[in-house]
Amino acid sequence: MDIREKTISSEQVYDGRIIKLNVDRVICPNGREATREIVRHPGGVAVVPVDKDGYVYMVRQYRVPYDTIMLEVPAGKLDKGEEIEAAAARELREETGLTAKNMVFMGNFYPSVGFCDENLRMYLATDLSQGETDPDDDEFLNIEKLHIDRLVDMIMNNEIKDGKTIAAILKAKILLGR
Amino acid sequence: MDIREKTISSEQVYDGRIIKLNVDRVICPNGREATREIVRHPGGVAVVPVDKDGYVYMVRQYRVPYDTIMLEVPAGKLDKGEEIEAAAARELREETGLTAKNMVFMGNFYPSVGFCDENLRMYLATDLSQGETDPDDDEFLNIEKLHIDRLVDMIMNNEIKDGKTIAAILKAKILLGR
Repeated sequence: MDIREKTISSEQVYDGRIIKLNVDRVICPNGREATREIVRHPGGVAVVPVDKDGYVYMVRQYRVPYDTIMLEVPAGKLDKGEEIEAAAARELREETGLTAKNMVFMGNFYPSVGFCDENLRMYLATDLSQGETDPDDDEFLNIEKLHIDRLVDMIMNNEIKDGKTIAAILKAKILLGR
Repeated sequence: MDIREKTISSEQVYDGRIIKLNVDRVICPNGREATREIVRHPGGVAVVPVDKDGYVYMVRQYRVPYDTIMLEVPAGKLDKGEEIEAAAARELREETGLTAKNMVFMGNFYPSVGFCDENLRMYLATDLSQGETDPDDDEFLNIEKLHIDRLVDMIMNNEIKDGKTIAAILKAKILLGR
């Protein structure tokens, strides 16, 4: 069975600072119509910066949707027209002050495929050197260095719940073990 | 430094079929105000059903935000007032026809912590028996059985990009190896 849907109309109901919201009408494979709510997002990058002893530079950041401080890999949105790898290097530098001689693409991460088009690209960053941090004006975070094995344990214990961090750390752990 | 933000106002700009959208004003740790766009989501479940030979029942589903058919673990939204574990059993049955004698909670998955409050609970389902599928009226999917080691390879090769699937399969692989 062809399980594709065909979009017949699209209405933008919100155009904001970071996201846009569209409400589309689609035709389902059975011929019936259905509504699809789609959050449009500029996309971004997530970086796992690992030093030669296996320690990862992580950030703790307040996240208003969950009203909690979360432990995450450094990440951020693409600037308009920015190249992906340049964005990864920029976010790493802004959030942790680090520069990486070696950046390996680890794959894409689609956070919530049912209603959002966000595309996050994951990188493993090694051969690090430390400089100054430079966070965004409205971004406040603390840096914490944790061993990757400790992070895998925290993921398995459900202490880390951030999706991109679970995916990026577990992929990095497998890559580093090869 | 206390990196929490304080919400001072919240406006609902959209109230839809699945998601709501709020635009909040917050006070940052430096005293300045900022805008936060927050998608409110009912939450859901994702299930990794593994048979005794290590094969996982996966679903292929068209996803309109990416205009593509994606390979995913069975998953779905909570019904109003529904208990989490009941939802996991229901989604598994509806999408794959399977019943599991054994369901183990593997942790939470927060897809996009910057702007969305979605909370997905991941389960490992074993001791499976097959019945009839019963998908939602506007849901069309194909079932495919793949070995978990093949799925880990597909994740590492970037053939699987769905965030919950990356997280749930890699966590399941670690759990099953213990």
